[in-house]
Amino acid sequence: MPDSSVTASEPLPRSSVGLVTPQIAHFDTPLPLACGKVLPAYDLVYETYGTLNAERSNAVLICHALSGHHHAAGYHSADEAKPGWWDAHIGPGKSIDTDHFFVVSLNNLGGCHGSTGPTSPNPETGRQWGPDFPMVTVSDWVKSQARLADHLGIERFAAAVGGSLGGMQVLQWTMAYPERVANAVVIAATPRLSAQNIAFNEVARQAIRSDTEFHDGWYGEQHTVPKRGLKLARMVGHITYLSEDAMGHKFGRDLRSEDLNFGYDVEFQVESYLRYQGDAFSTTFDANTYLLMTKALDYFDPAAIHGGDLARALAPAQCPFLVVSFTTDWRFPPSRSRELVDALISAGKPVSYANIDSPHGHDAFLLPEPRYCAVFSAYMNRVARDLGLPEIS
Amino acid sequence: MPDSSVTASEPLPRSSVGLVTPQIAHFDTPLPLACGKVLPAYDLVYETYGTLNAERSNAVLICHALSGHHHAAGYHSADEAKPGWWDAHIGPGKSIDTDHFFVVSLNNLGGCHGSTGPTSPNPETGRQWGPDFPMVTVSDWVKSQARLADHLGIERFAAAVGGSLGGMQVLQWTMAYPERVANAVVIAATPRLSAQNIAFNEVARQAIRSDTEFHDGWYGEQHTVPKRGLKLARMVGHITYLSEDAMGHKFGRDLRSEDLNFGYDVEFQVESYLRYQGDAFSTTFDANTYLLMTKALDYFDPAAIHGGDLARALAPAQCPFLVVSFTTDWRFPPSRSRELVDALISAGKPVSYANIDSPHGHDAFLLPEPRYCAVFSAYMNRVARDLGLPEIS
Repeated sequence: MPDSSVTASEPLPRSSVGLVTPQIAHFDTPLPLACGKVLPAYDLVYETYGTLNAERSNAVLICHALSGHHHAAGYHSADEAKPGWWDAHIGPGKSIDTDHFFVVSLNNLGGCHGSTGPTSPNPETGRQWGPDFPMVTVSDWVKSQARLADHLGIERFAAAVGGSLGGMQVLQWTMAYPERVANAVVIAATPRLSAQNIAFNEVARQAIRSDTEFHDGWYGEQHTVPKRGLKLARMVGHITYLSEDAMGHKFGRDLRSEDLNFGYDVEFQVESYLRYQGDAFSTTFDANTYLLMTKALDYFDPAAIHGGDLARALAPAQCPFLVVSFTTDWRFPPSRSRELVDALISAGKPVSYANIDSPHGHDAFLLPEPRYCAVFSAYMNRVARDLGLPEIS
Repeated sequence: MPDSSVTASEPLPRSSVGLVTPQIAHFDTPLPLACGKVLPAYDLVYETYGTLNAERSNAVLICHALSGHHHAAGYHSADEAKPGWWDAHIGPGKSIDTDHFFVVSLNNLGGCHGSTGPTSPNPETGRQWGPDFPMVTVSDWVKSQARLADHLGIERFAAAVGGSLGGMQVLQWTMAYPERVANAVVIAATPRLSAQNIAFNEVARQAIRSDTEFHDGWYGEQHTVPKRGLKLARMVGHITYLSEDAMGHKFGRDLRSEDLNFGYDVEFQVESYLRYQGDAFSTTFDANTYLLMTKALDYFDPAAIHGGDLARALAPAQCPFLVVSFTTDWRFPPSRSRELVDALISAGKPVSYANIDSPHGHDAFLLPEPRYCAVFSAYMNRVARDLGLPEIS
């Protein structure tokens, strides 16, 4: 991948949004949540890329996935090793072209990257929220995102865009605030998890919750980290993010050293990769946040209150949709996107659908696959044109 | 499923082999292992069903899968709740018809059901073997099974039969002892694990090994059981045994109670199922055995020493093969069976192949799917006919 790293001695890549600084918005109006509880006050950390035009019509909202956050593009400092997580698609001349658009990317409530979440202080007790942080759902997130839009003076987004769990938030936007979103881009997502999806999440949760360092979620006060559980959760996750073929091509049955050791040290390259990914994650991500994000995935099912009729659930939507899936994604396979597309068509909504040939499984939504870039850019350029935004210089 | 349970007050089903008693064979001749170590002496626990004929030509060997054992058919007592694990296919009038065949089923070395394994005493130290039990491989198992055949006076098996990891043992028989196996039945197996298969095994191993009750494998001496790890390992395993569709049909997004609880207690039926399966397994299976069995799966790759050429690896085989796969098996999908079939054809071996339409994923190999039963029975009846065994009465 180009532009994936810079060092202090090199200039930032020209296609990058460059140096960015996270900002914090504080909200004092209590937020009633789907679970019945009320969050009294909260912060949302966010970044913006590009410039909001005078009409305030060129804002694009980025919704993040399970382990994502607000840092979607650019660099926090000249010596940051990697840019934001969606830098492949956000920047000058990229799919979401910051020469046209003003991009807003936030960390969701319950997150562990600066927005109010389990590691924040609970104003009622003065302790960390920890496991007492209320369960937040996709609809709660979208409510809080709408308040962030108010805070930024954005009445209507030119587009809401998201992959995976982010795509669910985009769907929720079109149903909850149809007049506030001009376009919806739903990538590698699903209108609801399958039993198998829930099963994988449940394994991850059990791994974290059964870790002796978890202390019923009060590990922060115990000055421990349930690293073993987080590591296992991430290892399971990674298997579902990669396609079987991608894993086969990347690692096959390659050994770390020349011979088998007939023991439990790393022998196969794929073991080494998973352990590394798991270890890295276990020292940076909050366990209570991980639990909560997987639950938000499990709960999302807008068709449920309509007797399973997704088209009826989507009836309020007023915008055109772009739906994208990837051929080897087995976490949220193309069939799940087609389910959504069929419901949109039944509901009489304008929808473009692309199933992108990619070997990279679910992770493909993060990568700059040429045909994916072409479809994504073409759609976003049309959005810009329809809104009368100036052409790329 | 018929015949799946009896109570003390009911007679045993007529299609059952009835009450069976495990037997133990002791071996004093040291067994050199693939890992370079030598097992000085060992026991193998086994059961037999049917009657060995005077020519000793009607013996069928059953090779078990990851968590299997010697108790493949019949009942240990009249009040045993369930019969052996392959009772659907072994018995009078069943696929492996005990009116024709003398069936031998053993627990493999390293197991935890009576054969010498990590829970057995180490003669050198007087302690349990525990984690010092040497790594055993598929080829070691087959060597030990050949010695059991010697012990029983069986020069040549009418068939070696196995599903999943059991199928790998059958393949190994045809290469290591081609003159001692007249037919090979390889069901829901693969000639080698994929990177994804190894990845799932590695998650299971890490779950067990990172459990604080594991004590580097010396939990026996610490009087603890790494239950949390075993439970997670089994939960991951179960997801791979069921097809996504089977899980969807069985559980869907059904809730345990009417409403969401917005917490971490069981909410979805699939969570309840996985936790139950995991808990049950964690109190009955030995962790060191589980580790060792997953490693035996990972290591099996007979083509490796032939530069990846499976046909060359299979060249020594002298018998006809029946290969069976199941359409929704995503653990060892039909493509892996076809890989084997193609190699057998390249190597000029007679092979019958059936891809059975089943919704039950990998677990289908345990079930009495009608077409599966028909194919399996037809093949075994031909085996009986070719050997001049008497027809079913």
